[in-house]
Amino acid sequence: MNYRMIFKSLGSVLCIEAVCMVPSLLVSIIYSQGDTISFLLSIMILVSLGLGLRRIKTITNNIYARDGFAIVALGWLSVSIFGALPFLISGAVPSVIDALFESASAFSTTGASIIREIEGLPKGIVFWRSFAHWMGGMGVLVLMIAILPSVKANTLHIMKAESPGPDPGKFVPRIKQTAKILYTIYVILTAVQVIFLLVGGMPLYDSLIHAFGTASTGGFSNRNASVGAYGSVYIETIITIFMLLFGVNFSLYYAFLKGNIKSVLRDEELRFYLGTVMIAILLIVFNTYGSVFQSLGESIRYTSFQVSSIITTTGYATADFTLWPAFSQALLVILMFIGASAGSTAGGMKCIRILLLFKIIKREVIKIIHPRSVQTVKINGRIVEEEILSGIMTFFFAYIAVFTASVIIVSLDNKDLVSTATAVIACLSNIGPGLGIVGPAGNFADFSLTSKAVLSLCMIIGRLEIYPILLLFAPTFWKRVNM
Amino acid sequence: MNYRMIFKSLGSVLCIEAVCMVPSLLVSIIYSQGDTISFLLSIMILVSLGLGLRRIKTITNNIYARDGFAIVALGWLSVSIFGALPFLISGAVPSVIDALFESASAFSTTGASIIREIEGLPKGIVFWRSFAHWMGGMGVLVLMIAILPSVKANTLHIMKAESPGPDPGKFVPRIKQTAKILYTIYVILTAVQVIFLLVGGMPLYDSLIHAFGTASTGGFSNRNASVGAYGSVYIETIITIFMLLFGVNFSLYYAFLKGNIKSVLRDEELRFYLGTVMIAILLIVFNTYGSVFQSLGESIRYTSFQVSSIITTTGYATADFTLWPAFSQALLVILMFIGASAGSTAGGMKCIRILLLFKIIKREVIKIIHPRSVQTVKINGRIVEEEILSGIMTFFFAYIAVFTASVIIVSLDNKDLVSTATAVIACLSNIGPGLGIVGPAGNFADFSLTSKAVLSLCMIIGRLEIYPILLLFAPTFWKRVNM
Repeated sequence: MNYRMIFKSLGSVLCIEAVCMVPSLLVSIIYSQGDTISFLLSIMILVSLGLGLRRIKTITNNIYARDGFAIVALGWLSVSIFGALPFLISGAVPSVIDALFESASAFSTTGASIIREIEGLPKGIVFWRSFAHWMGGMGVLVLMIAILPSVKANTLHIMKAESPGPDPGKFVPRIKQTAKILYTIYVILTAVQVIFLLVGGMPLYDSLIHAFGTASTGGFSNRNASVGAYGSVYIETIITIFMLLFGVNFSLYYAFLKGNIKSVLRDEELRFYLGTVMIAILLIVFNTYGSVFQSLGESIRYTSFQVSSIITTTGYATADFTLWPAFSQALLVILMFIGASAGSTAGGMKCIRILLLFKIIKREVIKIIHPRSVQTVKINGRIVEEEILSGIMTFFFAYIAVFTASVIIVSLDNKDLVSTATAVIACLSNIGPGLGIVGPAGNFADFSLTSKAVLSLCMIIGRLEIYPILLLFAPTFWKRVNM
Repeated sequence: MNYRMIFKSLGSVLCIEAVCMVPSLLVSIIYSQGDTISFLLSIMILVSLGLGLRRIKTITNNIYARDGFAIVALGWLSVSIFGALPFLISGAVPSVIDALFESASAFSTTGASIIREIEGLPKGIVFWRSFAHWMGGMGVLVLMIAILPSVKANTLHIMKAESPGPDPGKFVPRIKQTAKILYTIYVILTAVQVIFLLVGGMPLYDSLIHAFGTASTGGFSNRNASVGAYGSVYIETIITIFMLLFGVNFSLYYAFLKGNIKSVLRDEELRFYLGTVMIAILLIVFNTYGSVFQSLGESIRYTSFQVSSIITTTGYATADFTLWPAFSQALLVILMFIGASAGSTAGGMKCIRILLLFKIIKREVIKIIHPRSVQTVKINGRIVEEEILSGIMTFFFAYIAVFTASVIIVSLDNKDLVSTATAVIACLSNIGPGLGIVGPAGNFADFSLTSKAVLSLCMIIGRLEIYPILLLFAPTFWKRVNM
């Protein structure tokens, strides 16, 4: 392990985090609700620690896969821990574990909250929560690769661990350029959404908060009733469309801009993703029309918003879906596990993995019927290597195993099993709300400190797709010291 | 497909089923509660249909893997359908779907029931339910291979589809001999249990019923309160021990008899199985002592029974565990998915698969740390082929996929999600009781006809480990007719 390089990189991460606190500092100055000092103090702590770590002399700049994984895992953990400072110092969230929960939820783009009364908090603090979403959205470390040219080591390993989904899709040869393209698309789409929200009469502050929450598929709002507070069909429609857009693999936008429209339209993951959205909306409309909603229009309005919000793992709400029939709730829980596309800001297992798993089952059936035939699994016409398939199947079990282990620990709080299980998946898949007491009308305040710590860890485990954090617990990971 | 051979085999299956009704006929004659005629009629129908099918002239006796799968799948379906006849004709279960549910539950060794008042039914009918368990336990078709020497075709394919677990373990070369050995161990263990129960003062009739339910890990009782009705520590202890014994891979008994005691004690699946039982008992005792049970002895007594009953997928109950804390309930639900050992009469995913899945994750972690090293997965010191590993991972996803799809359909009944989900896993893993309304004090009577049909299918899908039934739905399975 190149410990020196790891700590040096962490120093850079903390400096970036300090810079990212500046907008929130400005917001706090504008509204002057007494939270300015908390940002000044946090920035000072981050800068002094960050610069200190950056002064470490490295013997070699070479980093290997596991150094990359360590930087990603420790980087996310550090960012989440230090991101809790403004909450604590301002007194907005007085408990340490609660502040860590809120910060982990922000950076992992989960959007789960322990705050009961968000509208009473200083506007700078609420802005920080959402800006952290936005930073987390595209990956603090992707930003870092684009912004910090000083890290001259092999950054591909970091990218591999960071980028969501089984295939990072190296769509331009150089990693720094890739990061810049992703970053540009992300910024432009967010800006466009802000404009659309402003046009709908949403105040600038609220528009920024909701665009950050949508772009990162995070879901923090500055209103207790989430997007439902505006009661506007226009705003709901804009947010629905943008949630779905941010659930698309970003490499498809690049292909689109390059004119490869055919390949975009034929993309199997995109079709699976949009197909799942359509089918889920149809089934839930069929189930809620006449029971929960008296008009078909109402049913379509609330259902399409909620389905898009859950599958993209955003977590915004316009209706309390814990009151919907069991069938609708069961479908939403399944969407919580699936998530949107790889290469997007969404959490969950990702559509491409689920699609490939079904293809693997289909192959297994054909293998039984024709034992001697050789069958390959293809996606978009190209054969998927057996090692990738095996990795996806392992990931599926690992995901369920982490889910199960967390449910066991959280169940010690003796909440009902539906609340317990959906609290875990809402955190692991970076959604935010679940069912029962963690539904859109509830929050995570009632859980014990142990559960909140486990759920915070789940958010980061889910965000980094399990392995980087799992590796930290492997004894062999830390062997062969090489400082 | 060798359709002639398939139908001829089904004829044999029905004849066997007729023979297996004779003990129940005798019981009904002894107690003469008006159910004798239902058995006589059912036997007549089975014999005439069976003998009719057996007269089909085959062109060739060769059967291939998929013919074997078809015989297994259609055989189990037919046996379940015709096994419902005595329930229907006697009027014990007046609805067709209910009778099918009860019969599928019996033959698949599930033990889920739609009967609210079992003690009011004729003793012959209750005996048939449990005897069907016992028949199902070791597999109707294993019995068939041992009893019927007329099937001269390649019976290995049937065995492969039939025997529970990923490795059928050909512990003696000839398949017929294997079946006979399994059958003998099964009969002797059952007989020993009957003797132990008789010694404890249980009436002969009840002893037979409970030994059948234990041996097959089925769980049907002749008492409404299940094993709890006897309130006897001795009886509970005996049943606990025998449930655990019937959850052991039967090939280990053969190895034990041959004197390979060391290899038995070192068997990794056995250790994983017993280890899981021990840990689950410890954790649940820790959780229930002081909350549900006031004495440690009571807690150990009810916990060890319930853990053994659930992990072996038997489903007997001595306590209403739906009243236990969430932590205990969550652990029991996890045991429902795991099940006991492969090569036993238990349902569920089987310990060896879960053990291997964890080994695969461990390998994945090592692969990330040492990307160029070649890692194999071993069990009992022997390397497991990649194809088997891939098959196990696919099975895991297939199991979860069948579970999920069934939950969606059953949730249309709008029961709470815990009842819905545990009803499905209780059927898919061949357990019987779940949580909520399908807990040990409840039953499956309140579900709709659609749900009951889906749950019945789940029982058979789970019993045959998914693929034989899945194949029936594959269009290519039926191609290339060859009569």
